[in-house]
Amino acid sequence: MSKSVTTRNNVQVIGRGDDVIVFAHGFGTNQSAWHHQVRAFEDTHRIVLFDHVGTHGTDLEDYSPHRYAALESYSLDLLEVLESVRARNVFYVGHSMSGMIGMLAGLVRPEFFRGMLFIGASPRYLNSPDFKGGFERKDIDELYKTIEQHFEAWASGFAQAAMGPSATPEMVKDFSSSLLALRPDIAVGVIRIIFESDYREQITRLKVPTWVVQPLNDFAVPTAVGEYLARTLPSGNIRYVPNQGHLPHLSAPNEVNTLISDALAASALAAA
Amino acid sequence: MSKSVTTRNNVQVIGRGDDVIVFAHGFGTNQSAWHHQVRAFEDTHRIVLFDHVGTHGTDLEDYSPHRYAALESYSLDLLEVLESVRARNVFYVGHSMSGMIGMLAGLVRPEFFRGMLFIGASPRYLNSPDFKGGFERKDIDELYKTIEQHFEAWASGFAQAAMGPSATPEMVKDFSSSLLALRPDIAVGVIRIIFESDYREQITRLKVPTWVVQPLNDFAVPTAVGEYLARTLPSGNIRYVPNQGHLPHLSAPNEVNTLISDALAASALAAA
Repeated sequence: MSKSVTTRNNVQVIGRGDDVIVFAHGFGTNQSAWHHQVRAFEDTHRIVLFDHVGTHGTDLEDYSPHRYAALESYSLDLLEVLESVRARNVFYVGHSMSGMIGMLAGLVRPEFFRGMLFIGASPRYLNSPDFKGGFERKDIDELYKTIEQHFEAWASGFAQAAMGPSATPEMVKDFSSSLLALRPDIAVGVIRIIFESDYREQITRLKVPTWVVQPLNDFAVPTAVGEYLARTLPSGNIRYVPNQGHLPHLSAPNEVNTLISDALAASALAAA
Repeated sequence: MSKSVTTRNNVQVIGRGDDVIVFAHGFGTNQSAWHHQVRAFEDTHRIVLFDHVGTHGTDLEDYSPHRYAALESYSLDLLEVLESVRARNVFYVGHSMSGMIGMLAGLVRPEFFRGMLFIGASPRYLNSPDFKGGFERKDIDELYKTIEQHFEAWASGFAQAAMGPSATPEMVKDFSSSLLALRPDIAVGVIRIIFESDYREQITRLKVPTWVVQPLNDFAVPTAVGEYLARTLPSGNIRYVPNQGHLPHLSAPNEVNTLISDALAASALAAA
């Protein structure tokens, strides 16, 4: 019955160094999406990798739509992952949904985190009279229906849109395969909690220094939303990655690695 | 935009003493449900009271069904409440849904809690082939429909069932008024996440010493479920309160206060 957190989340600790970086993957990928970053930082840092429950590669018995009905559940898992490896004072890198997951974890355990870097993160996707998140309600409802009814066709279209026009066909194919490895009901469940989320209030309270990495032309996160996020976080900084697409750690690894290096150095200075 | 946790959750700190007790209310009540316990412990303990978001008495603007789509969200709020009053090493008393909320908080911050006492708590309400939670799927679906369509009629019936046959008419009326003070969509939203929940795996991992207070004839929690909970928690103890109903802190306050006193003493000894 009882399963260790390490097993549940496929926790891996690799690399050499006292400084710890935690990489948290976004929707449709798993920890393997960080291979470029692992290669760049494993000689100088201890690296914690894990998979969110429900991702391909985890035991899908651990997933239930009720247990994972909100990003808050993933942030509790993240805190358990950090406890399981006794990580403290870590630098957290979160892609997409893992931006807000890290933020929520940082609200309750700020002392766990020396700094955070969000790639393609958004506190709110839907448009409303007072906010332009980028998506209309009817488009989102259409999206849910498409995933439910035409999962395979949706995956290839979504992969192309997410990777952006500048990605190679191979990158698109990889991400598409990764999406297709998801169980369709889990994919739509997770997409739903992401697109329905609204963390505009919570981000005003995060005390951890944070770098918002905003790709140019990210279909999921309009530049204005990334700028809003950076401006609203009490210690937010924005950095642009001159690349299209929602997964620049895969499609523009060198640029992203440089931004991570810079943020690591800045947060080490601030902590010293 | 930013609101303090103290304001959001109506956090109150009262009483005298070094020892801290946190009381967390269940569905349909708010912090005022603890008045018998406050009177009994305020001369000897520091007492932290708060309301869950969505409860009558909180700003309903803070509630959204997506933000509060699972008990995990409430447990993050609880951790923020404890941070906001710098509470450490507390004794936590949680009623009904606040049992599992405390348990989830204890998984990620065990060092916050010296002990926990759950009143009328259940890790799983639904029956399934491998578990008898007490409720059939069709009964639960019927319940959701009734709350949605006949909120007022439902509230008075639910109040009677919850308080149990031995409660005075006044107690039933009080609880019924408290239920009617809820916004109906919030009531059904919260009832839903409670009855759909399944924390059988998580309870196997709670390291905090816990007392399970099981009322006799609790309509929401069969005695066998309370016993399962106590047996499955690594440091679980069961205590029966010889009273019917799901809210013994209101209907049998002396008995409950004695159980709290005993658990406080036992957990102080264990910590010493």
